[in-house]
Amino acid sequence: MDMDIKTIAVIGGDKRQLFLARSLCEDGYAVLLAGFDSIKELSGCVLCGIREALERADIVILPVPCLRSDGALNAPFAEKEIIFSNEEIKLMAEKPVFTSFAERLVRNHPALGGAAVYDYAARDDFAVLNAVPTAEGALELAMNACEGTIASSKVLVSGFGRVGRALSRLLVAVGARVTVAARKSSDRAAACSLGADAVDFGSADWDYDIVFNTVPAPVFDEARLKKLRPNTLLFDLASLPGGVDFEAARALGIDARRALALPGKCAPKTAGEIIKKTVFEIIKEVSK
Amino acid sequence: MDMDIKTIAVIGGDKRQLFLARSLCEDGYAVLLAGFDSIKELSGCVLCGIREALERADIVILPVPCLRSDGALNAPFAEKEIIFSNEEIKLMAEKPVFTSFAERLVRNHPALGGAAVYDYAARDDFAVLNAVPTAEGALELAMNACEGTIASSKVLVSGFGRVGRALSRLLVAVGARVTVAARKSSDRAAACSLGADAVDFGSADWDYDIVFNTVPAPVFDEARLKKLRPNTLLFDLASLPGGVDFEAARALGIDARRALALPGKCAPKTAGEIIKKTVFEIIKEVSK
Amino acid sequence: MDMDIKTIAVIGGDKRQLFLARSLCEDGYAVLLAGFDSIKELSGCVLCGIREALERADIVILPVPCLRSDGALNAPFAEKEIIFSNEEIKLMAEKPVFTSFAERLVRNHPALGGAAVYDYAARDDFAVLNAVPTAEGALELAMNACEGTIASSKVLVSGFGRVGRALSRLLVAVGARVTVAARKSSDRAAACSLGADAVDFGSADWDYDIVFNTVPAPVFDEARLKKLRPNTLLFDLASLPGGVDFEAARALGIDARRALALPGKCAPKTAGEIIKKTVFEIIKEVSK
Amino acid sequence: MDMDIKTIAVIGGDKRQLFLARSLCEDGYAVLLAGFDSIKELSGCVLCGIREALERADIVILPVPCLRSDGALNAPFAEKEIIFSNEEIKLMAEKPVFTSFAERLVRNHPALGGAAVYDYAARDDFAVLNAVPTAEGALELAMNACEGTIASSKVLVSGFGRVGRALSRLLVAVGARVTVAARKSSDRAAACSLGADAVDFGSADWDYDIVFNTVPAPVFDEARLKKLRPNTLLFDLASLPGGVDFEAARALGIDARRALALPGKCAPKTAGEIIKKTVFEIIKEVSK
Repeated sequence: MDMDIKTIAVIGGDKRQLFLARSLCEDGYAVLLAGFDSIKELSGCVLCGIREALERADIVILPVPCLRSDGALNAPFAEKEIIFSNEEIKLMAEKPVFTSFAERLVRNHPALGGAAVYDYAARDDFAVLNAVPTAEGALELAMNACEGTIASSKVLVSGFGRVGRALSRLLVAVGARVTVAARKSSDRAAACSLGADAVDFGSADWDYDIVFNTVPAPVFDEARLKKLRPNTLLFDLASLPGGVDFEAARALGIDARRALALPGKCAPKTAGEIIKKTVFEIIKEVSK
Repeated sequence: MDMDIKTIAVIGGDKRQLFLARSLCEDGYAVLLAGFDSIKELSGCVLCGIREALERADIVILPVPCLRSDGALNAPFAEKEIIFSNEEIKLMAEKPVFTSFAERLVRNHPALGGAAVYDYAARDDFAVLNAVPTAEGALELAMNACEGTIASSKVLVSGFGRVGRALSRLLVAVGARVTVAARKSSDRAAACSLGADAVDFGSADWDYDIVFNTVPAPVFDEARLKKLRPNTLLFDLASLPGGVDFEAARALGIDARRALALPGKCAPKTAGEIIKKTVFEIIKEVSK
Repeated sequence: MDMDIKTIAVIGGDKRQLFLARSLCEDGYAVLLAGFDSIKELSGCVLCGIREALERADIVILPVPCLRSDGALNAPFAEKEIIFSNEEIKLMAEKPVFTSFAERLVRNHPALGGAAVYDYAARDDFAVLNAVPTAEGALELAMNACEGTIASSKVLVSGFGRVGRALSRLLVAVGARVTVAARKSSDRAAACSLGADAVDFGSADWDYDIVFNTVPAPVFDEARLKKLRPNTLLFDLASLPGGVDFEAARALGIDARRALALPGKCAPKTAGEIIKKTVFEIIKEVSK
Repeated sequence: MDMDIKTIAVIGGDKRQLFLARSLCEDGYAVLLAGFDSIKELSGCVLCGIREALERADIVILPVPCLRSDGALNAPFAEKEIIFSNEEIKLMAEKPVFTSFAERLVRNHPALGGAAVYDYAARDDFAVLNAVPTAEGALELAMNACEGTIASSKVLVSGFGRVGRALSRLLVAVGARVTVAARKSSDRAAACSLGADAVDFGSADWDYDIVFNTVPAPVFDEARLKKLRPNTLLFDLASLPGGVDFEAARALGIDARRALALPGKCAPKTAGEIIKKTVFEIIKEVSK
């Protein structure tokens, strides 16, 4: 890839992309912002149409997710629905495109098939970096909902993937008494070395003030929910369909809440910076 | 003091006293709850009138603050104003009374002059214990207001008393880049040993994402506010009149907010436990 | 596997196996200790010959490593060389054997081919658990060698595998200014979320007080050593042949030291407990 | 005080003063080093006699302690005993002198009575800053002596002054299970907020792997030593006469060790930097 990038098109997306655009401006790039009609100005950025952005930019950045399920651009700040025209896709195919859900994008727009489409959201480093705002968002929700301090609370983190790991570390840091439930013995070992306790899911004791589920599988079915105290606070961070039987929880009087897309909701600025960082990491790798 | 306490009167106060009452119940005490007419029941506690509570209890616990500035009992859950009668004060004077603002209580009710009135809220341990929910409440406010993560943010903590200390430690733990502004060289040294940077108030650089003031003196007057970035988030935790010129802040476009009485607002359960813990610490000391 | 274990043979090994044996005794097992002739007694354990141990035990635990390169049992506390006889191997083949380097053991003693030989040292959880004493041992060495505190030192951790990760976390916890050098972008992201800085190996700046290498590849060749300050302390934790050109280091006046087998050297008690924990984890899994 | 300092005399002392001298050189000062005859050179510093140093310097820095109990200069690197002559004291009286134990110095040399003698070692910030290398030195000793990891060990810290506080925080950070024994209820509250448990000295349970005493009073007399496990490791960090009955400990088979002057022994470089930092803090305060 030609490293000589001067102009960047940021097309569609939510607050994260606005922060991304502003941060690119501050770094000295010319930024073309399209798909944000309801925004009147953003310091330093040029607001323009999709086509102009695609024509003038050296690279294109699309949001998370890039397309809605109906195929339209994910553009909550746009005043009307945006569907890329063939001509626009043809312009896009001529320059590097950084997007999430690349596969869906190319499936919907086969003319992008041979183009330089990079999926920043599918990368490991993107996921690792997002684990921090996810964990912090989860902590914020818990602080908000909980009548006591998180410090000294008995907290269970179910699952020890990237988010489970980051969340456990954060909870230990703020003084919670953390237990990690994990299937793999090596994950339980790693949890212990963070200062948490560890159990497997067969454990009998489910006496916690707060439970965070990160496992996208039916971990908290009725049987397991019955083992929780009725006043347990339960947050389901697992991607849809999640891991909690919310109906059963309601019936049991357990306060269970879905907590999805936390980086975008709780820390859009950081989420935008992470997109920027990952895009430039890709550029660096590709340019080698 | 006779250690043989069986019945405790919890008279007046907010959610903290309700959690206190419930916790005392769980410990096995008979709890008489007065001044909470709008509450219909609290598991395990007996709801009754002030007089009955005073007659039957072995000890009496009053809230924080105990009296409003007009001399009435601080009792937001009561349906009408409560002013202790002479008879009630006479009953109170016969048993150990645990209260905040003991001096004001005795000034308003001189008949308590020779009585066993203990001020739990004036004690060092009470203040130290409350620094944790205060710090956590401040973190919660900041997480809520901030568009980025607290992790990696540039944060200033002004003052290094109990709250400044607890807050700095918590912020370092969650990954913020913390600077402490303190007048005393030994406080700056202590801040450094927590992993923070330290400056004195003469420092020139006031480039922070978030500022917490804990100093009850006009630290953030117009001159100093002008040194902050306009998008700085500023929280004033110092007790009234606080340390921030809010009018000047508004004029400068700085988002400045008062953050008072955080334990009661953000973690009433913990705040109630702290009252309980301190009362029993006094009992232990007095019984020796 | 039959869970009904009463008698355990601990055969060969160093201090770790002695602590393992004592810990098993305290848990209520009958422990037969063989290959420790120079030890006169160990509270609660029965010291006996290899053969007796093999005959009477329900399971057998061999050390790390199990055999020396010449094929003899690794038994530094034995007064003479021990080579398992065919008869001993036949006894061994009849019961579960927990060992390190299972492959080498079976290669040297093919009669164990079909036996229940479990390699505890090859497991992930064993490696994860040992990362803690390894990191702590490395910290101890650095504290010992360094004329300043580790707090505030500039430290580089090269590599972000299990040991690099545990060591980075520990160094951050004690207040060092830690940089992680890692090839993978996701590892660098993870390092940042621990509170460290991260660079790739192409980084120009190699200005550190202390460097820990955990990468078993020639990372610190002459060219890179020349970039370090002459008074840098360099510890090579990578398994042999390691990652440091010690000759070049000496010529450059850099204080470079090998730091191998730290759990056994610095924390044999913990290392023994980890062997026990892993063996029982295997038993639990196999018994399901 | 005239801020225009160009030349500094560092007279007497151990490795700490050598690191101090080198650090002052690196900052651009001309440094005259006296009382170090056995040192042949120190990069950048001028080695000279006491008198020359006193004549030429703008300020004088004396070591910790400044004088031995026999009145001679504390100068372990000197080849023979140094006692300041009247003439030398007269020279000294003309310029700012920074020393430890100022009172003893002036008592021994009354001609310094009206001189500008500043006691850096008596200051709060000096003590706070030294608590970090003291804590780290204590951790190093424990790591060295202990057959298990400090992580997961049961550790008691007796006393919660500056050193007890810094040590408790460090031990919690490395994963030990820390209990603080403190007389004051507010200290116990503060210990809990660091993530430690807290007990008062009347506590019945003294079951620890490692005990650090920081209280300069007979805390660990025979009666209390008898409550410890025989294999407890006990370090006495309290200044002489300390807080441990070593004879009783020996009789009980407890491994008890004195651990004094840890900053100078374990981290002389940091200890030298702390002297420098404190001296310049005094200069800044005095110059205001």
